[in-house]
Amino acid sequence: MDKTTPNHTQTVSGWAAHDSSGKITPFTFQRRENGANDVTIQILYCGICHTDLHYAKNDWGITMYPVVPGHEIVGVITKVGSNVKGFKEGDRAGVGCLAATCLDCEYCNTHQENYCQQLQFTYNGLFWDGTITYGGYSHMIVADYRYVVHIPEKLNMEGAAPLLCAGITVFSPMKDHGLVESGGKRIGVVGLGGLGHMAVKFGKAFGHHVTVISRSADKEWEAKHRLGADEFIVSSEQKQMEGGKKTMDFILDTVSGQHSLLPLLELLKINGTLFIVGAPSQPLELPAFPLIFGKRSVKGGIIGGIKETQEMLYLCGKHNITCDTELIRPDQINDAMHRLANNDVRYRFVIDIASSSSQPPCSS
Amino acid sequence: MDKTTPNHTQTVSGWAAHDSSGKITPFTFQRRENGANDVTIQILYCGICHTDLHYAKNDWGITMYPVVPGHEIVGVITKVGSNVKGFKEGDRAGVGCLAATCLDCEYCNTHQENYCQQLQFTYNGLFWDGTITYGGYSHMIVADYRYVVHIPEKLNMEGAAPLLCAGITVFSPMKDHGLVESGGKRIGVVGLGGLGHMAVKFGKAFGHHVTVISRSADKEWEAKHRLGADEFIVSSEQKQMEGGKKTMDFILDTVSGQHSLLPLLELLKINGTLFIVGAPSQPLELPAFPLIFGKRSVKGGIIGGIKETQEMLYLCGKHNITCDTELIRPDQINDAMHRLANNDVRYRFVIDIASSSSQPPCSS
Repeated sequence: MDKTTPNHTQTVSGWAAHDSSGKITPFTFQRRENGANDVTIQILYCGICHTDLHYAKNDWGITMYPVVPGHEIVGVITKVGSNVKGFKEGDRAGVGCLAATCLDCEYCNTHQENYCQQLQFTYNGLFWDGTITYGGYSHMIVADYRYVVHIPEKLNMEGAAPLLCAGITVFSPMKDHGLVESGGKRIGVVGLGGLGHMAVKFGKAFGHHVTVISRSADKEWEAKHRLGADEFIVSSEQKQMEGGKKTMDFILDTVSGQHSLLPLLELLKINGTLFIVGAPSQPLELPAFPLIFGKRSVKGGIIGGIKETQEMLYLCGKHNITCDTELIRPDQINDAMHRLANNDVRYRFVIDIASSSSQPPCSS
Repeated sequence: MDKTTPNHTQTVSGWAAHDSSGKITPFTFQRRENGANDVTIQILYCGICHTDLHYAKNDWGITMYPVVPGHEIVGVITKVGSNVKGFKEGDRAGVGCLAATCLDCEYCNTHQENYCQQLQFTYNGLFWDGTITYGGYSHMIVADYRYVVHIPEKLNMEGAAPLLCAGITVFSPMKDHGLVESGGKRIGVVGLGGLGHMAVKFGKAFGHHVTVISRSADKEWEAKHRLGADEFIVSSEQKQMEGGKKTMDFILDTVSGQHSLLPLLELLKINGTLFIVGAPSQPLELPAFPLIFGKRSVKGGIIGGIKETQEMLYLCGKHNITCDTELIRPDQINDAMHRLANNDVRYRFVIDIASSSSQPPCSS
């Protein structure tokens, strides 16, 4: 298939980190012209994912500065290329983590582009033309339509933005394990943050019994009464963990800090699956006996494919599911990132991009 | 369903460990009468599984002495109870690890008795009547027919015995992952012992590309030329491991010693599965990144159900698959166990029970 590599002639204002301090400041840069396979999107909102923080601070040693973070992008389409199918000017659209893949491998051909070995991300990636990709902390983005999704009219745009990463990251494993619109299973959600609270919402919308497992006892009321969880287990309370043994079919573990897998594996029934979406940097301790005697699995996965992202969004429209957000202005990004680093957000910061002028700001 | 609990009136001669020295000596004991659901089997051969060694020495702290090991049992049926279906006197029959289950739970009802929470093993278990079970290091066993399988005429009995544990332990995960009689996948087998060599045989019989991964370079010739493996990777050779990266769909890990999972996970393709059947006593190190970025799984499992054990045996008959054995007399059990502890066996010791008198020997 054609790959789009036109000239980069469009000036865009946005916000970037310039060094490992991670401090975000206004930044003006160029995007490509809208090519035959591209849509141009006027960005309205962009979520702040924990990954943005890691890239801004070069935690993984792979940041290409200046980096314009943001892969939870929603807005309105303002231009459509001649080859584009399914989108028109004025459509509400979203862009997630994917900017480019090979379009031709077994994963691209089976709607698993997120596992394409030539995958390039929406920011800090290398696009087909060799240029560095810039993300959604900006007023406009040009995206190949094959990585763009529709946002149902019913959803508020602010709450829909984080669905593009936090949402699909928990939806995809649930779909893989037959938990979408099926009902009747017992699901555990470890960690009640941006990902965890979405998993609770999906779990309840799809008819399952959902238990939140958290270190923070003070989240119980919110988990149950605001998000609708059926049960709450404080992970440090031995008695509560004992009571939950062998009760769950599927556990989604969203915690990226170091933690022990044994107590979580023991919560699983025979044949149960512990699915890891948080990514601790150090290896986890995996005891073999609960796997072997319980025929249990530990799996991992990253985001999801475009087709299932669209499916998720339609289901979110049907069930009226959005992310719980705290809306901030662009000049509050650094404060928000500081709070995010301390897990002080319920449950996702979203930048109100349109609240700022789209003109390149004066540099100080 | 009826459970059999008649009197224990039959005197049997066998061999038992009496303390944590693990030394095996002749032992005379009682078995139950042949009940309505029972068959009585004159034992001809019994394999020596590594588990026997652990129980004999009380490595897991749960041995009830005297323990008569042995759960790879084959012989000929000599009595059949009135309720028994599908077996008759003179049939070649096998008994594996299972002596009793609840017969009524979701696992028993779906041919996964091996995960029944009331499972009792063929030795060192507590039968329905509360008596301790004694295994196959003996001349005769009484077994509920629901845990008994047929041994195809085509198979030699000596080589068939280890199929009841070593065979089904590697067959069951292969069946669960669609690898039986399907062909065309790339399978890795870690460790070339009793379990590993069976996995190679199954993998090749079912049409897969099989790579053995072993610490022992000197096993390459045998792996390839005797067992038919396609490739051999020495796990300590960095270059060989590099060359195997992302090439395998499924890896069966039979190593029970402590080892790192990272290099094995890296051998897997996207969506690949590492299945653990060896049971290291200490937790393994599980890095999250290769799971997450590769949508990989680590799973475990223990033996298999009775129905799939029978299916395996029929397929072994079809493909003429048996275990490679070293036949020993009962008075060589201690030597064999000593060699087994040093992994010095290719690939399974089998006791020629019939080579010894069935009369209770004089105790010294």
